[in-house]
Amino acid sequence: MTGPQDWPEAQWRGLVDRVGTGRRLVPDWPGGARCALALSFDCDHETFALGAGETAVGPLAWGAFGRRVGVPRILDTLARHGARATFFYPAVSALIDPEEPRRVVAAGHEIGVHGWIHERNDTLTEDEERTLLARSRDTLAEIAGTEIVGHRAAHWDLSPHTVRLVAEAGFLYDSSLMADEDPYEVLLEGRASGLVELPVDWVRDDAVYLLFSRQPTRPTHTPEQVFEVFRAELDGAHATGGLCQIVMHPFVVGYRSRIAILERLLQHAARLGGVHIGTHAEIARLCQARIGA
Amino acid sequence: MTGPQDWPEAQWRGLVDRVGTGRRLVPDWPGGARCALALSFDCDHETFALGAGETAVGPLAWGAFGRRVGVPRILDTLARHGARATFFYPAVSALIDPEEPRRVVAAGHEIGVHGWIHERNDTLTEDEERTLLARSRDTLAEIAGTEIVGHRAAHWDLSPHTVRLVAEAGFLYDSSLMADEDPYEVLLEGRASGLVELPVDWVRDDAVYLLFSRQPTRPTHTPEQVFEVFRAELDGAHATGGLCQIVMHPFVVGYRSRIAILERLLQHAARLGGVHIGTHAEIARLCQARIGA
Amino acid sequence: MTGPQDWPEAQWRGLVDRVGTGRRLVPDWPGGARCALALSFDCDHETFALGAGETAVGPLAWGAFGRRVGVPRILDTLARHGARATFFYPAVSALIDPEEPRRVVAAGHEIGVHGWIHERNDTLTEDEERTLLARSRDTLAEIAGTEIVGHRAAHWDLSPHTVRLVAEAGFLYDSSLMADEDPYEVLLEGRASGLVELPVDWVRDDAVYLLFSRQPTRPTHTPEQVFEVFRAELDGAHATGGLCQIVMHPFVVGYRSRIAILERLLQHAARLGGVHIGTHAEIARLCQARIGA
Amino acid sequence: MTGPQDWPEAQWRGLVDRVGTGRRLVPDWPGGARCALALSFDCDHETFALGAGETAVGPLAWGAFGRRVGVPRILDTLARHGARATFFYPAVSALIDPEEPRRVVAAGHEIGVHGWIHERNDTLTEDEERTLLARSRDTLAEIAGTEIVGHRAAHWDLSPHTVRLVAEAGFLYDSSLMADEDPYEVLLEGRASGLVELPVDWVRDDAVYLLFSRQPTRPTHTPEQVFEVFRAELDGAHATGGLCQIVMHPFVVGYRSRIAILERLLQHAARLGGVHIGTHAEIARLCQARIGA
Repeated sequence: MTGPQDWPEAQWRGLVDRVGTGRRLVPDWPGGARCALALSFDCDHETFALGAGETAVGPLAWGAFGRRVGVPRILDTLARHGARATFFYPAVSALIDPEEPRRVVAAGHEIGVHGWIHERNDTLTEDEERTLLARSRDTLAEIAGTEIVGHRAAHWDLSPHTVRLVAEAGFLYDSSLMADEDPYEVLLEGRASGLVELPVDWVRDDAVYLLFSRQPTRPTHTPEQVFEVFRAELDGAHATGGLCQIVMHPFVVGYRSRIAILERLLQHAARLGGVHIGTHAEIARLCQARIGA
Repeated sequence: MTGPQDWPEAQWRGLVDRVGTGRRLVPDWPGGARCALALSFDCDHETFALGAGETAVGPLAWGAFGRRVGVPRILDTLARHGARATFFYPAVSALIDPEEPRRVVAAGHEIGVHGWIHERNDTLTEDEERTLLARSRDTLAEIAGTEIVGHRAAHWDLSPHTVRLVAEAGFLYDSSLMADEDPYEVLLEGRASGLVELPVDWVRDDAVYLLFSRQPTRPTHTPEQVFEVFRAELDGAHATGGLCQIVMHPFVVGYRSRIAILERLLQHAARLGGVHIGTHAEIARLCQARIGA
Repeated sequence: MTGPQDWPEAQWRGLVDRVGTGRRLVPDWPGGARCALALSFDCDHETFALGAGETAVGPLAWGAFGRRVGVPRILDTLARHGARATFFYPAVSALIDPEEPRRVVAAGHEIGVHGWIHERNDTLTEDEERTLLARSRDTLAEIAGTEIVGHRAAHWDLSPHTVRLVAEAGFLYDSSLMADEDPYEVLLEGRASGLVELPVDWVRDDAVYLLFSRQPTRPTHTPEQVFEVFRAELDGAHATGGLCQIVMHPFVVGYRSRIAILERLLQHAARLGGVHIGTHAEIARLCQARIGA
Repeated sequence: MTGPQDWPEAQWRGLVDRVGTGRRLVPDWPGGARCALALSFDCDHETFALGAGETAVGPLAWGAFGRRVGVPRILDTLARHGARATFFYPAVSALIDPEEPRRVVAAGHEIGVHGWIHERNDTLTEDEERTLLARSRDTLAEIAGTEIVGHRAAHWDLSPHTVRLVAEAGFLYDSSLMADEDPYEVLLEGRASGLVELPVDWVRDDAVYLLFSRQPTRPTHTPEQVFEVFRAELDGAHATGGLCQIVMHPFVVGYRSRIAILERLLQHAARLGGVHIGTHAEIARLCQARIGA
């Protein structure tokens, strides 16, 4: 039988080098802060179902919870702590209620691209992917009246073309890869791309622990346990002077029993001291300045 | 390849608007209470297996546990706390032992419709669904000698027709959707329906954490952990003045090691103070009065 | 589409009545004890893999752990507490090393039938099932030199014939069903069978929480959490005067980090006081005496 | 239907005896220590994806995390505690960055074979398996400039030939089987092989609890819970004078929130006292000396 053990060296090296990791980019954090905390909220709402081809009434109502209950509660929590964050939107999610992303921007937060309808990139041709990326960005920019500089792939699912297309489209940063905890410059076929990666990870994603699902089985953790993991990630960033990047979802963390994860993380950051809380765009700009340094 | 990213706007808007969320309906709670707690018990018993086409001896005996052990233990616990609740019955489950729903009603609780044999609505034609809904309701009414005003879909599984059929049949409320924590008026194709939704959620369902299953893998939580989640949900309702709606199952929560979830939740409600505990029907009537307000 | 909702009443009633629950059988426990604790160990060892048609080296070595490490450690723990228990054996597991069941019996414990090679009963014809049941029982009796009076189906998987065949073969008790926590008389087609059921449950099975498996995903609980569940089950039996029946497996609980579940449960029983710890056979005899009462 | 219940005795005995367990080999631990702790790190990195035929950008970046963040952090932690350990490498993983295994060896640790590209042994012919085993070992030896004496099968997946091929190739030890907690001599078709087994187990593998996966669903445990399991395993080895063997992965345990598992285990070992921490090779040599004893 033929399998990966029969691949010639050029094949596996080519795969490994397609999207690589360049310089680690840890800037001096503003105001002499010891570390940074970048909070993000993926506002999939109804598109979590729609993008998977799921059109039943129940899952769509569940997605609407994120819109009706989750986002307002998150905005309120962030406002009480004076914290700014980044909200990633599938364009269709923004179109369903354009007032929501406008309120997000008006509150001082960033919005970024998260696909057209939360579709999987690896089901698209390169041309389709390029077209949807531009259309999604233009749609968000028009709705919110701001420049859009950040990209996160739906499902963190990357085609062989995604990262290159994001770089070619002139995005400041991507936030879909996991090769580090701290920001780094993306390499494409071994060459510096100028694109900043603000890495995500399953470890720092609320949905991994809490999003209800039959397959995979979830939730597996209590809100208290998720807070403890996020807290330890922030403590580690504080100890090393790096970045703690967290991913949450309004229809996951936006419940009465779970919003304490965000609330307590912000309290913990305040207690630690020296934690710079900024949008992904702001942090990516600080990192980008390091590329030329 | 064609996928959701190719759907025209009318398609995704139509799907999102089929069953929508209208006014939030939070009444003044009786007796000046700060919030409300609505407890429900889905009495699937043997129909949990039967409705899935599972006829083996073992799963049927397991369902019988809910009938033989679970319901009596739950009734006893509720009685000691003077708490009234709602028991949703697939009609066949009520027919297997009609004395059980009669005892439930005699103890001051409400019974509601939960399908004919715990079948999935999305496997039925609209006519079959209409017929089964009426037959289930009539069967329960006849057995228990009471009016039946509440509906919960088995598996919270809704066909495109379910909610409309429930509204057309003149039910007071549905309790199968998740678009909010607090009650709201259901919109059908964007128009007010008069139907009150008392929202459920995976977060507040004992089966999500505790129902034994090979696929999905469960239990994933200890009884103590489930209590902590439910307690936090109630605390949140108390803080915001809203409704805390909980779903339990006699063959899930009815064990010696798990009944403490219910017991402790009732103790916690008493300790909090200002928690109105009522049947779904009573709470839905208070909400319905707000529609005209 | 035709589904369970179309079944005539005779069909679902027939299924529900095939194996039913008769009188609850709670005897006066010996020595004036308040409740009883029946510990069982399913000694599948290598047959856990073999019976599933799995013949790879790794799973067979893992099964051997139960034999080489698990059983000796369990016997040692029981001996230190002077506790007697029941060990259920697939016949092939006993044949692989006949000295093991002999040592178990010599230490004062009971052995019972657990299939021929841990096969699934629902894959057999009625004749095959009858033949294997007799052959398994005879094999164990010959190896151990004792009468075999107890039966537990492998996987708790029951064909439509299993319980009747067990009754016809003159077994004193079965321990594979879940319709109660306390012992009861099995009904066959609505008629008393004389067979005592000592009910098992997923809630009181170490494998549900701890047996490594890719599908279903396990372990999901820590040993400490499993102990807390078992402890609460025993506390409940103590409060109600009933039976607490527990299922464990040498290749699940027999690890250094897990044997504390058994150790602490025995300590807790001693601390509670009034807990009669006996073999399943002994307890079933007390229950059987109640049938005539 | 024909199934395992129809297999003749020679068939199931043959399967059980193919790879058996010989003498338990517990040496006198060096320096009068009471027990031993053998830590291992499987450095799959990108080959975890590649060996499964997974070539997408995201999983490869995730594997790179182990290389970029995990291994350096593990080496730092071990160095602060003066602990030596064993790092198992798929050859391709070592080829992607040969400096990494060289740094590992330079720090006093052992490296061992873990397949060519993390391929499954049971997909190979005996000849392919023999060839890949030799090529992997030669590749590692050449890169690191050391003798390679230890073998661990990728996925702990063993063909019917694997253990014999490992013995024939003159390895000192294998570490892929689970028939005991303490080391033992492997039997092949009932005959002593001279090969030492240092048993692994799912119970003592970080990936079982923490490796993100959709199917099987993970993580299921918090880092704190995993530490408690490992601690109890070490306590048990301390109580019995045996070996505690642990498996970790740089892309599982190497996160800021998880490295505490390793850190605290080393602290706990120091606190216990009498814990000899050595490489697998060193411990296997002590065990091998017992074979002749």
